[in-house]
Amino acid sequence: MNKIEVCFSPSVFSHFDSTDKIVVVVDILRATSVICTMFKNGVKEIIPVRDVEEAKAYKEKGFLVVAERNGEKLDFADFGNSPFYFTPETVDGKTIVYSTTNGTNAITVGKDASVVTIGSFLNFSAVVKYLSAQQKDVLVLCAGWKGKFCLEDTLFAGALSNELMQSGLFDTKCDSVYAAIDLWDAAKDTMDTYIEKVAQKHRLKKLGLDNVIGYCFSFDQTDKVPVLEGNRLVCK
Amino acid sequence: MNKIEVCFSPSVFSHFDSTDKIVVVVDILRATSVICTMFKNGVKEIIPVRDVEEAKAYKEKGFLVVAERNGEKLDFADFGNSPFYFTPETVDGKTIVYSTTNGTNAITVGKDASVVTIGSFLNFSAVVKYLSAQQKDVLVLCAGWKGKFCLEDTLFAGALSNELMQSGLFDTKCDSVYAAIDLWDAAKDTMDTYIEKVAQKHRLKKLGLDNVIGYCFSFDQTDKVPVLEGNRLVCK
Repeated sequence: MNKIEVCFSPSVFSHFDSTDKIVVVVDILRATSVICTMFKNGVKEIIPVRDVEEAKAYKEKGFLVVAERNGEKLDFADFGNSPFYFTPETVDGKTIVYSTTNGTNAITVGKDASVVTIGSFLNFSAVVKYLSAQQKDVLVLCAGWKGKFCLEDTLFAGALSNELMQSGLFDTKCDSVYAAIDLWDAAKDTMDTYIEKVAQKHRLKKLGLDNVIGYCFSFDQTDKVPVLEGNRLVCK
Repeated sequence: MNKIEVCFSPSVFSHFDSTDKIVVVVDILRATSVICTMFKNGVKEIIPVRDVEEAKAYKEKGFLVVAERNGEKLDFADFGNSPFYFTPETVDGKTIVYSTTNGTNAITVGKDASVVTIGSFLNFSAVVKYLSAQQKDVLVLCAGWKGKFCLEDTLFAGALSNELMQSGLFDTKCDSVYAAIDLWDAAKDTMDTYIEKVAQKHRLKKLGLDNVIGYCFSFDQTDKVPVLEGNRLVCK
């Protein structure tokens, strides 16, 4: 029986042992939803970078760069962080450099795990299938908001944990897993109203960017499961 | 209207601004329950210390010392960490030095707040009354377990947040508050079975120390509200 754990934010990650585990990075609003959308639409690879300066350096070398802080596109970037920008016409076959407030930081924090993969509602069933086949312990790393807990990543962690526990292949001794499952249970049947509690919804609304929320909570738009190889996300 | 926030573990606390806020430290199993019991039974003051070496130095100076790590009493200490040790005969009028795995660390982490106070189910209504009278923002700091989230502190944070929000004196934009309230709602009517999810219950059971759990979840055993003054907890 493999174990599942949930880490509610990158600032807690050092208290977990990620050795020989699969880390599933989650940033529902919006980084991991955007990443899954890019792969769905044919991106070749994504280079996640933590620092703005590093993203700028890639831009100067001629890379296509997506960069956002506090929800807003940085001026040197080619694109901001809406999944709707990344149509097949825009990304098919391309290499994209990607830097966001929380999500790409979480990918960097998790990078020493045995495997780092990317989870969102958009590739939910594909991630469940992938994790069920690996026979490894799983650690879900929520990107959170600036080091803190956030609800939307936790709801995904709960949905995923619930599915893995139900399969009989996983169990847990982790309080965060039970909490995430109970929150998913409280939210899942009334998601449209539950989402009103999510601070990030209101931040995006203020920026006029909340039109992505329904899409980011929709299940199974792609069967792609991005994994980190070296410093690049790819789908094999 | 004052604000309420919840911080799920001391390792996340640096991401919160505690300036001009009341920090309520919570370690239900067992530090803050023990502290409330000591004050109920007449302790004069408690000196919380983070390090074992510091606790040992106090012992050598002749202080009465309570010290525990990973649930077990340290050999130099006068007492381990069960609330049942601290009868009026043992503590009335005394100064006690106190060091535990998680709780006293959380008190130390929160010490730069405007006010640091101690919450548990045992002094629940007294804490609600105290906070309602202060006209300050409130930040509930869960001690957690070795830097991680734990359920029992979160349930208390949920019960407290719920009460403060219902009073109409507080509101929130903090996802952790909503999560804690929803977990309290999921747990409160079936606490005896819900508690089976709590990892700390199973740790205490292994040590034969789980006889304290029913007591630690019982409401309103005292009207004492300990606050930190300098390096000492006192009740005014």
